[in-house]
Amino acid sequence: MRISLDISTNPSDYAFFFDIRVRFAETDAMGVAHHSSYVAWLEASRVEFLRELGTPYPEIRAQGFDLAVLELFANYRRSAQFDDVVRVHTGISSFKAATFQMNYLLVVEGEVCALAATVHGVVDATGRATRAPSWMRELLAGA
Amino acid sequence: MRISLDISTNPSDYAFFFDIRVRFAETDAMGVAHHSSYVAWLEASRVEFLRELGTPYPEIRAQGFDLAVLELFANYRRSAQFDDVVRVHTGISSFKAATFQMNYLLVVEGEVCALAATVHGVVDATGRATRAPSWMRELLAGA
Amino acid sequence: MRISLDISTNPSDYAFFFDIRVRFAETDAMGVAHHSSYVAWLEASRVEFLRELGTPYPEIRAQGFDLAVLELFANYRRSAQFDDVVRVHTGISSFKAATFQMNYLLVVEGEVCALAATVHGVVDATGRATRAPSWMRELLAGA
Amino acid sequence: MRISLDISTNPSDYAFFFDIRVRFAETDAMGVAHHSSYVAWLEASRVEFLRELGTPYPEIRAQGFDLAVLELFANYRRSAQFDDVVRVHTGISSFKAATFQMNYLLVVEGEVCALAATVHGVVDATGRATRAPSWMRELLAGA
Repeated sequence: MRISLDISTNPSDYAFFFDIRVRFAETDAMGVAHHSSYVAWLEASRVEFLRELGTPYPEIRAQGFDLAVLELFANYRRSAQFDDVVRVHTGISSFKAATFQMNYLLVVEGEVCALAATVHGVVDATGRATRAPSWMRELLAGA
Repeated sequence: MRISLDISTNPSDYAFFFDIRVRFAETDAMGVAHHSSYVAWLEASRVEFLRELGTPYPEIRAQGFDLAVLELFANYRRSAQFDDVVRVHTGISSFKAATFQMNYLLVVEGEVCALAATVHGVVDATGRATRAPSWMRELLAGA
Repeated sequence: MRISLDISTNPSDYAFFFDIRVRFAETDAMGVAHHSSYVAWLEASRVEFLRELGTPYPEIRAQGFDLAVLELFANYRRSAQFDDVVRVHTGISSFKAATFQMNYLLVVEGEVCALAATVHGVVDATGRATRAPSWMRELLAGA
Repeated sequence: MRISLDISTNPSDYAFFFDIRVRFAETDAMGVAHHSSYVAWLEASRVEFLRELGTPYPEIRAQGFDLAVLELFANYRRSAQFDDVVRVHTGISSFKAATFQMNYLLVVEGEVCALAATVHGVVDATGRATRAPSWMRELLAGA
């Protein structure tokens, strides 16, 4: 496994944040957000982060690349509830030739809700692993 | 709209059924299956019905067709709970050159849980509406 | 069935709108937003509409009520794509003692993407149908 | 973090397996199963494993307990496709007083599709961490 589970709980260690409101459809019969819902929030925040960096994800796809998810980790600390606004602090924690890791700190009303990380591989349109093109390395390595 | 809301509550009016167990991820904070979960169950049952008819959906896609959902209706009568087994009775209620309607009766332990219908359009690989090829007409018109 | 399929395509017939960006998790292998994703968008827009009216949904639940979905209709006209911003025009089209209908017009870049409607029943905390309390009647009947 | 990322790729190291067919709703615009879909599969397999052990999850909930997900890890190796049957090998890898880890090996047609692990905490009906009752310890420690 490539993933590092060393994830900061300090918001200032993250380059970006994105606020997401918990949908009722995302809750479960325990009365809180289902643990799989967080995975879509990480992705949504990632997509907004790329937009902020200047390269919206559809543009990356239009150039023939995808950022496949290779590994995923989440540590759930405090349940998010329906209608809560979850602030997803997001940043790139490491970048190599063909893979990179993103870390996430999820906060609800100032309390840590969850920590998470995803490892991504750059793939071409056929799903084959490939080196990141230089513009992507510049985009992500500096973020 | 093309859809007919005249949906039978009699299981014997349906050609096929498929049993689906309600996942915990499909429940919501009201403690029952979320109403959007049923939509995926209809689809799963449709896919099994096509397999039963002899043409698995991936084969339809491999031949360059998709069955786009044009309309959807659901009438929720009695909540399905986590771990319930939902029997999805499924049948084709009408078939025209390029569209057809499927009806569904969802039953849990002998009680009607929901009625539903979907109207589909035959589309080519680019998503454009097209006439159903003869094998598909034979497949669906007789079902 | 109680639902009326007479749904306006004119945005000015709706009291409210809410913008939702299509998540990658909401797409499917046809390359567009999966038809079940729309159901969660309708709900999210409904929740924001109630907030705008002055009674956030969690407050309705805290008062011992839920707005169960009894019927659902959707007419898909034009696929929404990943990263599209879907404007969900939302309004109440009829209100009776214990049930009401909401209509939705979904628009992407000025083009109609889908029409939809939901019929809701007011239920108490145990899920039993009940008359809407007077504050809810005032809230919804005038909206 | 409590999770161990040491997850076996040998099916015979797992006590149980459960087969799940990939739904079209679970795919994404990359043409494969979305990485969040796997999370629901792990859960469904866990639920079937508990049933096999003799204590269906609804019974655990009826006794006032829930098995909250504290940590989640997934390593995606090979995409699952629409209509694939994913065999989810499932087992308990460690058990302590109030938490336990489950490991998963996901296989499609004999090829490793993904490895995963979840760490669970026993909680009471209010969501508070609690020691596992003796019947649960016996149930899970021996599995």
